[in-house]
Amino acid sequence: MPEDLLQNIRPVLLMGPGPSPVCEAAYAALGKPTLGHLDPYFIRIMDAIKEHLRQIFHTKNEMTLTISGTGSSGIEACFVNLVEPGDRVLILANGVFGKRQQDMAVRLGARVDVLDVAWGEPLLPDAVKKKLAGSAYDVVSMVHAETSTGVRNPVEEISPLVKSTDSLFIVDCVTSLGCIPVDVDRWEADAACSCSQKGLSCPPGLAPITLSARAMAKVKGRKSRVSNFYMDMTALTTYWEGDSRAYHHTAPSNMYYALYAALREFLREGEDKVFSRHLDTHAMLVRELGEMGLTLSVAAPHRLPQVNVVGIPEGVDDEQVRSRLLNEYRIEIGAGLGALAGKVWRIGLMGHGARRENVEKLLDAMRRILGR
Amino acid sequence: MPEDLLQNIRPVLLMGPGPSPVCEAAYAALGKPTLGHLDPYFIRIMDAIKEHLRQIFHTKNEMTLTISGTGSSGIEACFVNLVEPGDRVLILANGVFGKRQQDMAVRLGARVDVLDVAWGEPLLPDAVKKKLAGSAYDVVSMVHAETSTGVRNPVEEISPLVKSTDSLFIVDCVTSLGCIPVDVDRWEADAACSCSQKGLSCPPGLAPITLSARAMAKVKGRKSRVSNFYMDMTALTTYWEGDSRAYHHTAPSNMYYALYAALREFLREGEDKVFSRHLDTHAMLVRELGEMGLTLSVAAPHRLPQVNVVGIPEGVDDEQVRSRLLNEYRIEIGAGLGALAGKVWRIGLMGHGARRENVEKLLDAMRRILGR
Repeated sequence: MPEDLLQNIRPVLLMGPGPSPVCEAAYAALGKPTLGHLDPYFIRIMDAIKEHLRQIFHTKNEMTLTISGTGSSGIEACFVNLVEPGDRVLILANGVFGKRQQDMAVRLGARVDVLDVAWGEPLLPDAVKKKLAGSAYDVVSMVHAETSTGVRNPVEEISPLVKSTDSLFIVDCVTSLGCIPVDVDRWEADAACSCSQKGLSCPPGLAPITLSARAMAKVKGRKSRVSNFYMDMTALTTYWEGDSRAYHHTAPSNMYYALYAALREFLREGEDKVFSRHLDTHAMLVRELGEMGLTLSVAAPHRLPQVNVVGIPEGVDDEQVRSRLLNEYRIEIGAGLGALAGKVWRIGLMGHGARRENVEKLLDAMRRILGR
Repeated sequence: MPEDLLQNIRPVLLMGPGPSPVCEAAYAALGKPTLGHLDPYFIRIMDAIKEHLRQIFHTKNEMTLTISGTGSSGIEACFVNLVEPGDRVLILANGVFGKRQQDMAVRLGARVDVLDVAWGEPLLPDAVKKKLAGSAYDVVSMVHAETSTGVRNPVEEISPLVKSTDSLFIVDCVTSLGCIPVDVDRWEADAACSCSQKGLSCPPGLAPITLSARAMAKVKGRKSRVSNFYMDMTALTTYWEGDSRAYHHTAPSNMYYALYAALREFLREGEDKVFSRHLDTHAMLVRELGEMGLTLSVAAPHRLPQVNVVGIPEGVDDEQVRSRLLNEYRIEIGAGLGALAGKVWRIGLMGHGARRENVEKLLDAMRRILGR
């Protein structure tokens, strides 16, 4: 038997774009005894997860639950359920995760139109308005916090434009939920999804999702069947809703425990405090990076506090810096994705990771490595 | 803040059809520090998981990994990748999970043919031979251990029949892997999948899968794109194979740790011993149930040791018995699924649960409740 690699896992301070540092309550929850997926006590935990998620998404949507997969499965569940072959879909894209939505919609046989905006720039209402004026879309979709570029897209300004049409409106909140305000009902979003491992400080593995009554009406009235059983919302309803729950899949109980614990941690601290921590540490990071001569790629008004995309200075070896941070200082930051590979670093301040002492540790290490 | 439900989770002896009792090593692994999904040390753990899975599946398939979803996502990943719209698919079905395969294939737009065999009976080579003689199928699929009926289907006898045609051959090993011999390469199965929470004694959440080179050739040569990004094997390859790993999804690190630990436990004990434990406890259970006047629904040669389907005696209240077992004795057994609901119980002896002391505890409780 080869060596047991688990014995030598050394903790890493996770300051990339996710996973984020896991809260102690979530770690403790993971090891609780596994219960069966139909055990009435386990169903109570599921019901509490739904209720907590509604609070955090700011929604009254009955259909609020978690997909038993990681964040990518959450946005795909939105598309798989709400997009039929031949549907006209508009994707508002300004980064890797917008383009991924395009890819998912194309796979489903939709007629996909894309508003391509330069990476690093936000989606702006004027451009969206112009695009919407020309056509009628069945679905319009966007990313709230573009993890690849560090841009905050103004959902609150784009939403009224989409809602003035008949389109269903999907918002990817993978990197926003738990870090900056998400307000599903005020936005009138028909579908929103997230993940466990960023703002919520739970390990990766789950994808919270919420669908409006209007979205569920489309799912129930589909002409074609949902192409995927695992992500089929009507099938999932039999397990997540009602007085008598029927087996759909074997829920990952221990991951549900961790999510439950992480949601409670979030609610206990309160979103105002959590969001302030993110803004405060972000301001501190930007200021001190500036003193080192490092600049953020995104203009100040459009920055995400939780994903700080920093230009790699001329002559600095991207991989070497990240690898020294990891090996010598046990700190992880993220590389650039897609077109930004090699050009930027992504520094995450997410959930429990958004603390001043973490910023200090990172900056101290970067100063030593970069000699600045 | 409502009460913390995690504080009052009382352990349950899991003797249903899964999840099974989790081994201590897997529980301990869950709480290890979360690493990033591209951390080189984490990649080493993924590589070890692949290698251990190859040993347990008995395959040399390069494409051996785990889907980041529960068991149902594993079989769906087989279909989503290997079935194109219009493909001729034959499902050999004798229970809920065979019928679910049919459902998945229909959703993908395949032309689906089904060999429907009575629930409780095994798939027999003669019937399969006759069915295959009439047509040419792109894909033939079956379940090895039918969890809903407790029947072992003779893959080793059916495989040569399928392999004498040009069809790709999919085998669902969700309930067999780790409990009874699974031999992917000897079967020449083109795709096989399982789950973490039955024979492997890990919590639910992951779906090990293996695809032959021939299966991967079909995936790479598809005319249409795989309809699902999350389960797309070519996309997953970029993350699981090669010297430089690219992001596909954020792997559920802590669940991977638990699977890694559970696989090592299995290999340490050795499959011969593990399989003997299953057969031994099964024989003990059947004998003692017989003394209580309870009989198994499946004829002896076709029984699965790990899923014992027991007829509910006339006049006995199904739900009351299961609920007393759970509430008074903290033992879970499974209800009947589909057409068998209310007619049978399903008693699992799976993985670490297959121990004589567990059988004694269950039988003692059943004797008291049933007064037999």
